[in-house]
Amino acid sequence: MATALVPGSFDPVTNGHLDVIERVARYFDEVIVAVIANPQKDSLFPMEERKSMLTEVLTHLANVRVEFFSGLLVDFARDHGADTVVKGLRAVTDFDYEIQMAQMNQTLSGIDTFFLATSPSYSFLSSSLVREVARFGGDVSTLVPPVVAQRLRQRFEEAR
Amino acid sequence: MATALVPGSFDPVTNGHLDVIERVARYFDEVIVAVIANPQKDSLFPMEERKSMLTEVLTHLANVRVEFFSGLLVDFARDHGADTVVKGLRAVTDFDYEIQMAQMNQTLSGIDTFFLATSPSYSFLSSSLVREVARFGGDVSTLVPPVVAQRLRQRFEEAR
Amino acid sequence: MATALVPGSFDPVTNGHLDVIERVARYFDEVIVAVIANPQKDSLFPMEERKSMLTEVLTHLANVRVEFFSGLLVDFARDHGADTVVKGLRAVTDFDYEIQMAQMNQTLSGIDTFFLATSPSYSFLSSSLVREVARFGGDVSTLVPPVVAQRLRQRFEEAR
Amino acid sequence: MATALVPGSFDPVTNGHLDVIERVARYFDEVIVAVIANPQKDSLFPMEERKSMLTEVLTHLANVRVEFFSGLLVDFARDHGADTVVKGLRAVTDFDYEIQMAQMNQTLSGIDTFFLATSPSYSFLSSSLVREVARFGGDVSTLVPPVVAQRLRQRFEEAR
Amino acid sequence: MATALVPGSFDPVTNGHLDVIERVARYFDEVIVAVIANPQKDSLFPMEERKSMLTEVLTHLANVRVEFFSGLLVDFARDHGADTVVKGLRAVTDFDYEIQMAQMNQTLSGIDTFFLATSPSYSFLSSSLVREVARFGGDVSTLVPPVVAQRLRQRFEEAR
Amino acid sequence: MATALVPGSFDPVTNGHLDVIERVARYFDEVIVAVIANPQKDSLFPMEERKSMLTEVLTHLANVRVEFFSGLLVDFARDHGADTVVKGLRAVTDFDYEIQMAQMNQTLSGIDTFFLATSPSYSFLSSSLVREVARFGGDVSTLVPPVVAQRLRQRFEEAR
Repeated sequence: MATALVPGSFDPVTNGHLDVIERVARYFDEVIVAVIANPQKDSLFPMEERKSMLTEVLTHLANVRVEFFSGLLVDFARDHGADTVVKGLRAVTDFDYEIQMAQMNQTLSGIDTFFLATSPSYSFLSSSLVREVARFGGDVSTLVPPVVAQRLRQRFEEAR
Repeated sequence: MATALVPGSFDPVTNGHLDVIERVARYFDEVIVAVIANPQKDSLFPMEERKSMLTEVLTHLANVRVEFFSGLLVDFARDHGADTVVKGLRAVTDFDYEIQMAQMNQTLSGIDTFFLATSPSYSFLSSSLVREVARFGGDVSTLVPPVVAQRLRQRFEEAR
Repeated sequence: MATALVPGSFDPVTNGHLDVIERVARYFDEVIVAVIANPQKDSLFPMEERKSMLTEVLTHLANVRVEFFSGLLVDFARDHGADTVVKGLRAVTDFDYEIQMAQMNQTLSGIDTFFLATSPSYSFLSSSLVREVARFGGDVSTLVPPVVAQRLRQRFEEAR
Repeated sequence: MATALVPGSFDPVTNGHLDVIERVARYFDEVIVAVIANPQKDSLFPMEERKSMLTEVLTHLANVRVEFFSGLLVDFARDHGADTVVKGLRAVTDFDYEIQMAQMNQTLSGIDTFFLATSPSYSFLSSSLVREVARFGGDVSTLVPPVVAQRLRQRFEEAR
Repeated sequence: MATALVPGSFDPVTNGHLDVIERVARYFDEVIVAVIANPQKDSLFPMEERKSMLTEVLTHLANVRVEFFSGLLVDFARDHGADTVVKGLRAVTDFDYEIQMAQMNQTLSGIDTFFLATSPSYSFLSSSLVREVARFGGDVSTLVPPVVAQRLRQRFEEAR
Repeated sequence: MATALVPGSFDPVTNGHLDVIERVARYFDEVIVAVIANPQKDSLFPMEERKSMLTEVLTHLANVRVEFFSGLLVDFARDHGADTVVKGLRAVTDFDYEIQMAQMNQTLSGIDTFFLATSPSYSFLSSSLVREVARFGGDVSTLVPPVVAQRLRQRFEEAR
């Protein structure tokens, strides 16, 4: 029974993340979505809110659970019984960095990383672009799940 | 009548930017060079100075005007009657990021982005490299227009 | 009045090509789609058929015409009054090669090349992949215009 | 129970392929290694020999079997009950092409492709480089399994 | 007699840096390893400690000396009689940025930059990844020289 | 005393090759330019002519000599006392392939490969583009040395 670990900041979760996690959940018995817990970091949403949004949009996937992680990814994987890391990939620049992380993690612990190409229609999508669009009042309803779109609106209305 | 929008920080404008804008001005009826207005950001030149340098070095191009822009690029384009975005491209890393922005902008508003390859002789040139060279007293007279070279000298002499 | 030249093999034209040409036709007064005339080359469709398929799927665009071209692209552009070359771009590997061609053409004649990013949903699409899918009886009806799908079916049925 | 399909030419199988297949076999219940059956193609080893070498070097992996495949990969996957395609990845150029294939296959049939980064020590290794080294009498004993090294020697001694 | 300049932050020196410097020392008569002196920058190790670690791990190389550098690299090269810059290269993203720097430096002063590909087994290794692994108590003993591993342990124990 | 080996097809030598070789000759005591001897291969110029053109345009460089090479590059390097391979690099696609070759050569024999970025003004230049331009009567006088331009003209006039 293979368990996949899908780590990320998810600030916030996008339709691209959702698409990747749904596909990973088809091939692995269990999926742990691991939200980087960085209390001090300048993220848009606090880590608890990033986790609660993820949990809400993933409720339809019975074999997926959401956790916080901090420290070394390879330690987290070992402690939670994850067999492998899975990451979505959008572009070449991603790939260069991600392959370095993957090879470092394999050297440190023997854990492997699988990459899953994002669907073409989400290849341009990133949390940071979503934040930028939402900040200036752009319509993100086709880019993120409805609950995220709503919280982005609230967040930037508060800021005005 | 097609209007092209050329956005950027232009901190400061380089001979590479100038080369791209001159070529865009040949193919489009009107060109709006849009200087990102970020009062708080840690740019070398304040936004007014970045705009005034651009305006000065582009006076020979009758169909080009310089504006500030803030907010969403696609909103600015719609409000100013721009039909398309045009960007200069220097390298693969540029391309990956720029194609993401282009596809995001197309998804948000239907606006397209054209890319124009920089001339080979300017392919290594960026505003950040120019700032770094000038900061340490290097000769930038072949990299930027004379007015920019002079202001860079003044700026870093003041800083000493 | 600016005229754009869109060169290619178009063996066969795909929905990705169509999407690029339609968008170019919005921004340029006139568009010449130039089919590489290589009678000896081992293409799937003879050059006349490649041109006739293009002509058929582009009839709704009044400012677009289809021509054969051979020899140097820069000579063809000059002889046909084209001001600039426009190419669709799908990936980084494309970009590296295309930027070399663009800089060579600029050096030879001063003609510029604009690149237009393909829509995300067509970013995986190429004529050679379409040929391979069709050769093995795969369904290409979402990848190419109906007339092209039909001719691909005929072509590979003949070959059996 | 998830079945992974690992397609390739394997002309011949290298230590890099072996490393990837061994790691895939850890995470998937069943692995089908699919050798492209191209009788006419100018490969170094005939397809039967490529398959028999693979079978020999993979005997220690009980959940891996080797098959020929021809036609569309997505048809083969469906007919053999494969849930997903897995490919080893060495470099950025690989990635660009492979992501196109992956997105095409997903569009045609909904099948996903996972990519597994090769170990750093095999990142430079390809069947074509191995053939070139062996052709000129170079030592390939650290690059391929012993049985493959021996057959490469025989093959090029015959050719002299 | 050719002198090579190998600039970097070396925060801290890794086995990858060491591998590159050892190979450069074989081909050039003299090698100057130039540590960027940035007292204010938020580096993990102060510049004196970065230099002393480098000096310690390079004592076996008689033709290599370690220096601080600040200002323009091309000025430092000229003042220290360096004929050329040599840099280790790990990935494509590196290459894009490094080629820009190299062409800028050549334009400013005529100095050339040679690139040396890192050994495959160090291709994933960077100072920033090493710092991150060490920060969370991971084992870096195969990634950096023993003296560096020890100082990383001390540094992060102090921080707890 | 370090000897550099610069291998290539040189079909024909371009101003870009010349620029790289001239710069290598400044930093290495001796330079061997090694022309791939492939009598059967479909090159434009026969190998003797490729070598004679190279020899003619390199006469001003006393420490450079031109040789044929066949077989494994690492064997040739060892037999001719070359300490290292040096290659010009134009683009990212080049880099991916070249880094594979470099790492293979290092694994086979311990020989290292240095890469030298081409000058920006030659970054678009390749022998194959030059052949294509000359084939259609384009002006290559700024792309290759005069002797090569003349032979290209003769060659394609003969072919008409």
